[in-house]
Amino acid sequence: MEYDFKMKIKVRDYECDLQGVVNNSNYQRYMEHTRHEYLESLGENFGAMHAKGVDAFVSRVDIQFKTSLGSGDTCLSCLRTARESAKLVFYQDLFRLSDQALAARGKVEIVVVVNGKLTRGDYFDHLLKKTNKQ
Amino acid sequence: MEYDFKMKIKVRDYECDLQGVVNNSNYQRYMEHTRHEYLESLGENFGAMHAKGVDAFVSRVDIQFKTSLGSGDTCLSCLRTARESAKLVFYQDLFRLSDQALAARGKVEIVVVVNGKLTRGDYFDHLLKKTNKQ
Amino acid sequence: MEYDFKMKIKVRDYECDLQGVVNNSNYQRYMEHTRHEYLESLGENFGAMHAKGVDAFVSRVDIQFKTSLGSGDTCLSCLRTARESAKLVFYQDLFRLSDQALAARGKVEIVVVVNGKLTRGDYFDHLLKKTNKQ
Amino acid sequence: MEYDFKMKIKVRDYECDLQGVVNNSNYQRYMEHTRHEYLESLGENFGAMHAKGVDAFVSRVDIQFKTSLGSGDTCLSCLRTARESAKLVFYQDLFRLSDQALAARGKVEIVVVVNGKLTRGDYFDHLLKKTNKQ
Repeated sequence: MEYDFKMKIKVRDYECDLQGVVNNSNYQRYMEHTRHEYLESLGENFGAMHAKGVDAFVSRVDIQFKTSLGSGDTCLSCLRTARESAKLVFYQDLFRLSDQALAARGKVEIVVVVNGKLTRGDYFDHLLKKTNKQ
Repeated sequence: MEYDFKMKIKVRDYECDLQGVVNNSNYQRYMEHTRHEYLESLGENFGAMHAKGVDAFVSRVDIQFKTSLGSGDTCLSCLRTARESAKLVFYQDLFRLSDQALAARGKVEIVVVVNGKLTRGDYFDHLLKKTNKQ
Repeated sequence: MEYDFKMKIKVRDYECDLQGVVNNSNYQRYMEHTRHEYLESLGENFGAMHAKGVDAFVSRVDIQFKTSLGSGDTCLSCLRTARESAKLVFYQDLFRLSDQALAARGKVEIVVVVNGKLTRGDYFDHLLKKTNKQ
Repeated sequence: MEYDFKMKIKVRDYECDLQGVVNNSNYQRYMEHTRHEYLESLGENFGAMHAKGVDAFVSRVDIQFKTSLGSGDTCLSCLRTARESAKLVFYQDLFRLSDQALAARGKVEIVVVVNGKLTRGDYFDHLLKKTNKQ
């Protein structure tokens, strides 16, 4: 699969729970961090957007957990974007770097709210122009 | 809707992110905590299960985010269970207590691994007998 | 010891790390949540304060870890306050409810910043009047 | 100051709280992660240690917070170690990379428990030999 952005994330031991593997909620956090780093690669910053009154909100996440990550593991976090009506959809895969095993696969839907009002997602068009996907 | 278990969860301020509302990943955590408290209400404990070699793993989460929770809010976390082939499925709703607004709605699929081997979910039958749902 | 405020906090399993006990950083979070609940008991709210331009910042924490909390445990979180020059100091003890063992003991120093400027802590005088400690 | 280990840590937006800056508890997490990466640089792994019955526990943290880190910031996390009686003490400084401002300064004391028994810290001697500090 072709991805729009990739980054490595090293597991931090406090992210592992009493089962000895990364707690599920942290995969969602890895995915958020990857989206925000992708945003920075396009010249935007999530905190700066908020300060300007532009907030991207997650409206839905659908994550399948395949292989557990554990202490010492690094994952390769990959995403690709698709524009679907008012939403921006991120397809996000996390692979364990050591053996390329799929750790988690997610579909994350984002909407944009400007000054408290839900938009039709024009902000995304502006953003995606920079990736030649528009 | 009829639920099998309900509990209140007060928002903790460190769970809110720079947008001033509870970070998405924490809804997943609220849902996990609610499942584990439900387990305790049935006489089981997640940590004790792990010590016995019985691990419940989340195989999939699908969460829709509807209304943001913020500082000072309490949510009412509700769940009902359904047995689907080898899985136990939790339907989980989080409501803002003050106005009953739906904050998040999730479907969480669980599988059970015993001593490292995926089971057909017999553990759930044993568990659900206690709720008269079997 | 006499405390100004007490509350119970149930351990959430995702707060335990791969050692099977609550990760140290979460004791600091329990203490923060207790301070904020104390604040609410006095009619204030941390998020509302921030919205008004009044921010309480932690300037120092000193925490001793005594007994580990684990899955299924509830802790009794207790605090007492002292005004020291421009700071408000919280002495915070966490006890394991089942046997009253001291889990952690902390000293947390707070300063108040109003509209970005460090204050002499007058906000605390106003706050503590409500507890008859001033 | 001379440090034994340094690494960069990029702020993740979910680590910022409603005040718009990194929540205090996360500095403790950055420091833990840095210690564990230092351990890996010496050929050890925290999870593997636990599996062998060797657990390093934090017995005390003393952290001063100086400059807030925020969205988009990277910090340079530095540590140096000192052997003090049965403890290993980590002196840890976090600097904001952009301007070298000190964000937080911590002293973290560690003890080692082997198979549930507190040790005199011999494990540390073995470890520190690799850094020529013994």
